[in-house]
Amino acid sequence: MLKETNIRSVVKGITYRVAGTCTTMLIVFLFVGRLDLAFYTGLAETFSKIGLYWLHERVWLKVRWGRKKIEPFNIWLTGLPLCGKTTVGDLVHQKLRQLDIPLERIDSKDIRELIPDIGFTRNSRNQHLHRVGHLICTLQKNAISTVASFVSPYEESREIIANMVKNNIIVYIKADIETCKKRDYKHVYEKAICGEYQNFTGISDVYEEPKHADIVIDTDEVSAEEAAEHIIKFIKKRYIK
Amino acid sequence: MLKETNIRSVVKGITYRVAGTCTTMLIVFLFVGRLDLAFYTGLAETFSKIGLYWLHERVWLKVRWGRKKIEPFNIWLTGLPLCGKTTVGDLVHQKLRQLDIPLERIDSKDIRELIPDIGFTRNSRNQHLHRVGHLICTLQKNAISTVASFVSPYEESREIIANMVKNNIIVYIKADIETCKKRDYKHVYEKAICGEYQNFTGISDVYEEPKHADIVIDTDEVSAEEAAEHIIKFIKKRYIK
Repeated sequence: MLKETNIRSVVKGITYRVAGTCTTMLIVFLFVGRLDLAFYTGLAETFSKIGLYWLHERVWLKVRWGRKKIEPFNIWLTGLPLCGKTTVGDLVHQKLRQLDIPLERIDSKDIRELIPDIGFTRNSRNQHLHRVGHLICTLQKNAISTVASFVSPYEESREIIANMVKNNIIVYIKADIETCKKRDYKHVYEKAICGEYQNFTGISDVYEEPKHADIVIDTDEVSAEEAAEHIIKFIKKRYIK
Repeated sequence: MLKETNIRSVVKGITYRVAGTCTTMLIVFLFVGRLDLAFYTGLAETFSKIGLYWLHERVWLKVRWGRKKIEPFNIWLTGLPLCGKTTVGDLVHQKLRQLDIPLERIDSKDIRELIPDIGFTRNSRNQHLHRVGHLICTLQKNAISTVASFVSPYEESREIIANMVKNNIIVYIKADIETCKKRDYKHVYEKAICGEYQNFTGISDVYEEPKHADIVIDTDEVSAEEAAEHIIKFIKKRYIK
């Protein structure tokens, strides 16, 4: 939360006064027809009203009325391992921050580091996403939006999130499995193919394509930058007014 | 985050105008000495300046300068099972909410429900608190303060939190173990004594009294209401200016 400092109110008083006094002087001159009186009136007004403005600001800061809560949203990026979720998510996060939106970035990796023993079975994954959903809800209660990137391979896992959070936007980052394998700088596909990793999405476990994605990004056709721009445009249209 | 609506700016313009125009009319009357001119000047000013005020407000909403981030804090309630942490924590939370502070309540129970397989060994407890610390940090990054209640029986567990979060206030809710046993409406002490629960703080596991608590509440001497008031006073003095 941001607090309006006293000095901000004083400076607002001064800038308003410059604009206000010019207006008053013009009015006085039009009605009275004398430049000297317009000038003295303006002078007296300047000093008395900076104080008045300050007082008026401080009183209004105590009034809650007319302040609207910004609705938080959750951008949920799903897709095969190494499809580009994290890259696009980071870009979207960066661009939204510039718009001064209270925002948190949640990536699968960071959460798994915190709870290392989760596992990758269907049940474990769903439990895991339930916890992530809880984190997003906690943030949303405090008007903080989220950019989350998780493989989330099952329809049911994504539904868990959709049912828990408000304004959920499913973004499917679509990439051919062969493309992902080629990008395998982490050697995870390699290890999965060798059988070192079990329940690896795309190799030894299924990826159920989202049926109701709000946005589909085909990484064969658009760059990460373009994908991020596309998502931002969607968010701006729906949630930032 | 709260957004200032357009209508709020318009109404602020009107209330400022009432006060402002009275001042202007008085000034004009003092300089010009004519009531009718003071009146016409005031009338012309009223209309022109409500618009000016509105415009001035909307321009200033785009200026970041002079808005100060409120420093988030963490109230960490520690003590034996059933010593009264949750009761005091709930009261503190309720009172701080009334002060319009962005705030989240975190109770041991809620987090353990999310991650049911944690366990109660020294190592498990510390890992658990590390995760809780991470959650508090995430909230603090977004300027949200926290009221957290956890047995957190070891000096080292409390240090994990103290090292992770900002403005950490350790509140030791001190209660005699016999008093806690008498309050045993959950029958947890009973089960621990029977050996049904292992590593139960106070029975089969140690509670290391905090050496550096910021506040010590002796539940034999003060009520939950008084304890909450005491904590609020401390917070107001240090963090709410």
